[in-house]
Formats: sequence, structure tokens, C-alpha cells
Amino acid sequence: MPSISRKGQQMPESPIRKLVPYAEKAKKSGIKVIHLNIGQPDIKTPEIALQAVKNNTLEVLEYSRTEGTDEYRTKLAAYYKKRDISVTASDIIVTTGGSEALSFAMGSIADAGDEIIIPEPFYANYNGFATASGLKVIPVVSSIEQNFGLPPVSEFEKLIGPKTRAILICNPGNPTGYLYTVEEIQKLASLAKEHDLFLVADEVYREFAYDGKQHYSILQEPGLEKHAIVVDSVSKRYSMCGARIGCLVSRNPEIVQTALKFAQARLSPPTFAQIASEAALDTPQSYFDAVITEYVSRRDLLIAELEKIDQVVVARPQGAFYCMAELPIEDADHFAQWLLEHFQKDGETVMVAPAAGFYATEGLGKNQIRIAYVLEKPVLKRAVAILGEALKTYPGA
Amino acid sequence: MPSISRKGQQMPESPIRKLVPYAEKAKKSGIKVIHLNIGQPDIKTPEIALQAVKNNTLEVLEYSRTEGTDEYRTKLAAYYKKRDISVTASDIIVTTGGSEALSFAMGSIADAGDEIIIPEPFYANYNGFATASGLKVIPVVSSIEQNFGLPPVSEFEKLIGPKTRAILICNPGNPTGYLYTVEEIQKLASLAKEHDLFLVADEVYREFAYDGKQHYSILQEPGLEKHAIVVDSVSKRYSMCGARIGCLVSRNPEIVQTALKFAQARLSPPTFAQIASEAALDTPQSYFDAVITEYVSRRDLLIAELEKIDQVVVARPQGAFYCMAELPIEDADHFAQWLLEHFQKDGETVMVAPAAGFYATEGLGKNQIRIAYVLEKPVLKRAVAILGEALKTYPGA
Ligand SMILES: Cc1ncc(COP(=O)(O)O)c(C=O)c1O
Ligand SMILES: Cc1ncc(COP(=O)(O)O)c(C=O)c1O
Repeated sequence: MPSISRKGQQMPESPIRKLVPYAEKAKKSGIKVIHLNIGQPDIKTPEIALQAVKNNTLEVLEYSRTEGTDEYRTKLAAYYKKRDISVTASDIIVTTGGSEALSFAMGSIADAGDEIIIPEPFYANYNGFATASGLKVIPVVSSIEQNFGLPPVSEFEKLIGPKTRAILICNPGNPTGYLYTVEEIQKLASLAKEHDLFLVADEVYREFAYDGKQHYSILQEPGLEKHAIVVDSVSKRYSMCGARIGCLVSRNPEIVQTALKFAQARLSPPTFAQIASEAALDTPQSYFDAVITEYVSRRDLLIAELEKIDQVVVARPQGAFYCMAELPIEDADHFAQWLLEHFQKDGETVMVAPAAGFYATEGLGKNQIRIAYVLEKPVLKRAVAILGEALKTYPGA
Repeated sequence: MPSISRKGQQMPESPIRKLVPYAEKAKKSGIKVIHLNIGQPDIKTPEIALQAVKNNTLEVLEYSRTEGTDEYRTKLAAYYKKRDISVTASDIIVTTGGSEALSFAMGSIADAGDEIIIPEPFYANYNGFATASGLKVIPVVSSIEQNFGLPPVSEFEKLIGPKTRAILICNPGNPTGYLYTVEEIQKLASLAKEHDLFLVADEVYREFAYDGKQHYSILQEPGLEKHAIVVDSVSKRYSMCGARIGCLVSRNPEIVQTALKFAQARLSPPTFAQIASEAALDTPQSYFDAVITEYVSRRDLLIAELEKIDQVVVARPQGAFYCMAELPIEDADHFAQWLLEHFQKDGETVMVAPAAGFYATEGLGKNQIRIAYVLEKPVLKRAVAILGEALKTYPGA
């Protein structure tokens, strides 16, 4: 019998997937599971985007251009310009989600055995894309005490070697919610230039910057044109995760031409979703204002409620819609499963994302969880109350 | 300055891409270019599929399940059952086009440095996916004289070594239009079993089998459950290439579980397109009957007209919508460019796909072209007349 590839064996399972059967069992036994574990916003997709798809008059649903339609890329360039990011349509390749942009970026800059430095905790699927490309993720630790801010440059420098090809950051961060300052981006830029590394920034949460803070893109940093590669997506920005549209943006033409070759093999990004994404660019600012107001008030409530629980340490996210919390427990994987199997409060329990899956360093984050505040405030409040009660009786505390 | 990856440098350019600037120049100078080079059908997408998208009532365009919605996979399993292919929903992973299924299949069965045997000429993007995964394509020659039928088993056996992981076929073939017989599939099945290889069949043109011939899927072959992996797609079947929906089908649970891990990293296939694809399954048989009647009459016209040209050898495709032709020329790449740069008949010229890009063996196919008959008969007829005239004056003949 033929056997599967070593790479296939090494591909990581989604860390949350293990919990799914327990969640299903809980639901079957009549318990309501509140999902704090997912990154799927509950916010409505802009009507203008949904309508554009309903109003399409296509008779033949054709492939689009490999790099995305000219119309969409031209309008995207205008979107970036408004955010002080000066790029043209030819700097953009439309991809099937930010996910595909991550694959194309990794494939374009690194070969099997090469290394990419990533501050941890990080978006767990970076592991999957790196494994699929045969790359090694080299983590640099950021800590909850520092709010997951940029680790000292010296920590990066210790890790840079002959195989290092790039530094990858997520800004604002999933799972940290951390928003990098201009100074931090500048430090990274100097580092990239000094050591001839690419700087890849996953900016899919760009729009979600709070407390009057401005997002600073690596594409705004002068002199970084050759090094900067941005991964972007409509998934979270317009709450249209199911569209599967993202993009890779770089002012380094060699990068764009190389990514284009990966894109050519898979022909084109989805057509309906490009129609929706192009229309979404006309979403009025009031939509974002309302969404951001909502997320901020959820975050504030979430943090306030969590801090009422004894011995819980909470990060102060200023972006995205995730919050990391340290709990007085040994093993969050066990705790998460226990919540689904053995706990309920008034017929409800919660599902959380254990944070170990966001760390590459074995043993880190074992007492942390990630909470996504993509639920309405009353539900969030109940969810935290459940967590508080559970911690009182949890035997692994 | 950081440099791009070796892999990125090795990624093949689409063979047709080189011709695009010449086609654009011709158009700019007022010449009408008839595209014989593309695999984008001109057939209308079934109304039922387009309507389903227009009638959707989604308010939040959410991620679907990683493996595709349960509804769609269940209906897909029923579709296969009708074609004597006995699979269940859990044997299916919905992918972003057949393209992604090819990537997942390669990633699941082979590691960097491993080899995959493919009869040539073959779909050029197999090269791209193989390069992206670091795999080596080992071609086995099929010839226009044999109508591109299966090369002798002994030819495969010469190529099988310790690094061989799989045989990949395309049935019916792009670019050959060849439809494998039951006996040929059985030979491949024995070969796969004897040498512990996976047999991957790209069956995206399954529905396009002509002259009363039946398509025989590798999933119909008894005893091949562990070895068989099918790549499928709605792109050509329902003329909805822009949907970007395909699937990977295998009755080997280890393969499905492994491919699922690759799928998890990219989250989910597109939601609108799954709605369209699910609805498309209700397309009435009359749609296919009409489409097939049309393709057959185009093929017959195309072959009859081509055979009128002196020294042209034409294959007799019994499936898909491509036809390979050998021309009395030295270099089809040069000829194709010359047609766009220097030839016209009554203000029109043609763009063809030079066949060298479909061969992995250097030097093969240089006097062949692929013609896609996705144009209406009067246009096809004019296109062949242009080819005939051009061959009379072409200096490289
Ligand atoms: C940090 C980050 N990057 C990329 C993605 C990929 O998203 P998509 O492929 O939907 O654009 C996600 C999704 O959750 C994410 O959180
Ligand atoms: C033989 C073959 N396989 C796979 C594909 C990929 O198609 P898609 O990704 O649109 O399903 C094509 C498209 O032309 C093809 O011809």
C-alpha cells in the first residue's frame, strides 16, 4: 500500500479541531456552547457587496485574470492610497483569501529548509503554510506582560542566520490584538534592510485599530520597497470570510512577478467574490465606525469582566478582535476539553481556544487562552461568568 | 537586497503568456484575433446555478466548513453514484477549483525530490504544482500516431524507481482529448498496485465523452480504493470556471485526512461558488446532451477542415474539447508569434497554443499545436482557413 508523504504527516491539525467532537457531544446532550474560539465575525456583510453579487448579469461564469480583474485592482490601489499607502494596480495580486497570499509569499521568498522568524504567539495556520512549503518557523517570544509588543531587536538578531529569509509579523495581531507602533515597524525595517531579509506583514486586521491609534503599514515605511510584502484580505474587513478574496501587495516587481507564476498555476481567484469585494470598497465609513465602536465596547466589557476573576491576567489589545488571557491553570487544552465535557452553568458552557497552538516553542502558552470577541455583549458577559465559575471548580487549577 | 527563492525562479511561466503581448499588439492595430488557445468554454452556465446565487439570503458571508458544506458534499456523492462511482460525502473534500485538489493531492502523496510519472503531452500547470511542491515530473511519451493512447506498461515500468510515488493521468485528456478505455485503466490499476503507487486521475472533463463512449473512472475500478485519488471540478462541466470549485475524492481515509490538513490551513472554499455548484447538480440532462452535441459537431468540423490542409496530422479526440494537430513547421512557438505579428486574412488572425509547453521532454511537440474548440462553428471554420493560408506563406515551414 502506498504511504502518504512525510510532509502530509507533519502538517499540523488545527488546534481547535480536537475540541470539536466534545463541543458536538455537549450540544447533543442539550448544553448550549458559547463559542469564544472562532475568528468568524458576527457582523453583517455590507449590503452593497451582497447586492452587487445579486445584481450580476453574467451568463458565462468565466475565469478572471490570474492577478484579479483590472477594475478591482485599480479600485484597491485607490483604497490603499486613502490609507497613505502608495501602490498601483500592478503591485497587487488578488488571491483566494489572505491564506493564498501567505502561501504565495512563502513560496516566492523561501525554499525548503529556509527559515522565517515570527514573533509568537502567532496565527496557527502560519505553521501549516510553512510546513506545506518545507520552511522552518523560528519563533521569537513576545510576552503577555509586555502586552505582546515587539520583542527587542537583539532577540531577533540572535536568531538570524544564513538560512533566515524573512520576518513575518501580524499587525494588528491574531491572537494578540497587538498593534505595532511606528517605531516598532521602523526597527523591523532597519533589521530587514541590514540583514537582507524580506519583511512580510499580515495586515488583514488593518481596519481594526482602536483607542485613536493609527495602523502603520510596512508599505508606508520609506526605503522598504524591495523588502516589504503585505498580505491582505476582505474576510474580516467586510465580514465576508466566505468570499475567499485577499491580496498580496509589494512594490518589489520581482516579488510580484514570482507570485504571479504561482498564481498562474491555479488560474484565477473566484469571480463572484471579486464582484462582491470590488463593491465592498464603496462601503461607507459609517459602517466601519459602527463596527469599531461595537468591537471596542465588547473588548472593554470583556477585559473588565475577566479582570474580576481572581488570578486572571489579561492583555490589552488595541486592534483586531482577539484577547489573550492567562488563567490560574496548568493546561488550557485540558481545561477547554473539561469545559465542554464536565461543566455547565444554567445549561451553558463555553468553548475557548487554548493558546499553546499559537506558540511554536514547546511548553509556552499552556496556561493561556484566546478569546475572540465576535459575540454580542450580553453573551460575552455570560461567557466570562461561566469561565469564572468554572475556574472555581476546575480540578486542574 | 533579499533575493527570491530558487523555487520561485524555477516556477514555469504559462506557455501562452509569452504570446499575450503580441495578441494585444495585433488587436491594437485593428486585427481581430480568434482565440484557439484557451480552455474557457463559451457555453452558458446553467441558469439554475446562476439563479441560486442571486437568490441567496445570506446576511453574513461566513466561512464554510473546511471540507465544503455537508449539503454540497452529500449531493456530490449522489452525483457520483449516478455515474457508478460509489463514494460518500466523507470521501470528498471540496476545493478551490480542481487546481487546489491537484496541489493537495501532490502535497499528500509526495515530498520534495519525489517523482510522479505523467504521460505527455499533459496539462501544463501540472509542472507548476509539481515545482511548487518540489516534485519531479517524469514524462512517459504518448504519440499523436497512437492518438495519444496509453503508452505500453513497459514504458512506465522503465521509469519506476525508489522515488516514484504516483502516476498522474488526465482522462479525458487536456491537451489530447484522449479518453482512456476500461482496459487501459485496468492496466494502470495493476501497475499502481504492483509498485505501491498512487494513481491520480484528473477527471475534470469526465462529462465530455463522445461517440457513444463511456468514461470509466479510476474510482470504478475494484480493489483500487487505497490507491485512487480523483481530481474533479465544476469549471468545465457546468461552464463555470470562475466559480473556483473542485474536489478531491478518495476512498483512502488516510489521503482524505491528510488533504484535509492542507485544506484546514486555507480555511474554506468559496461560499457563493458552493451555492452555485450545489444548485448546478440539478442541471437537467438535456443541458449536457445539447452541449455534447455541440462539441461533437465542432470537433467533426474542426478535424474535417484541418485534414484538408496539406501535411497536417490531426488526432481524433473522443473527449474534452481540445484537439492536437501536427503542422508542417519546425517551431510552433515561432509560428504562433508570427501569426500574431505578421499574418492576417481579411483582417483576422488566430492565436494557437504551441504544444511544446505540454511536453516535459525537451524538443518534443515543437511542430504541434493545441486547438480548443470552444468557439462557434463559423468562427472555427474561418480560423482553420486562416491557418491553412498562413501555412502557405509562413517562412518557417
Ligand atoms: C492573522 C490572519 N491572517 C490570515 C487569515 C486568513 O484569512 P483569509 O484567508 O480568510 O483571508 C486569518 C484568518 O483568520 C488571520 O487571522
Ligand atoms: C486538465 C485540467 N485539470 C485541471 C484544470 C483546473 O481547472 P480548475 O482549477 O478551474 O478546476 C484544468 C483547467 O483548464 C484542466 O484543463
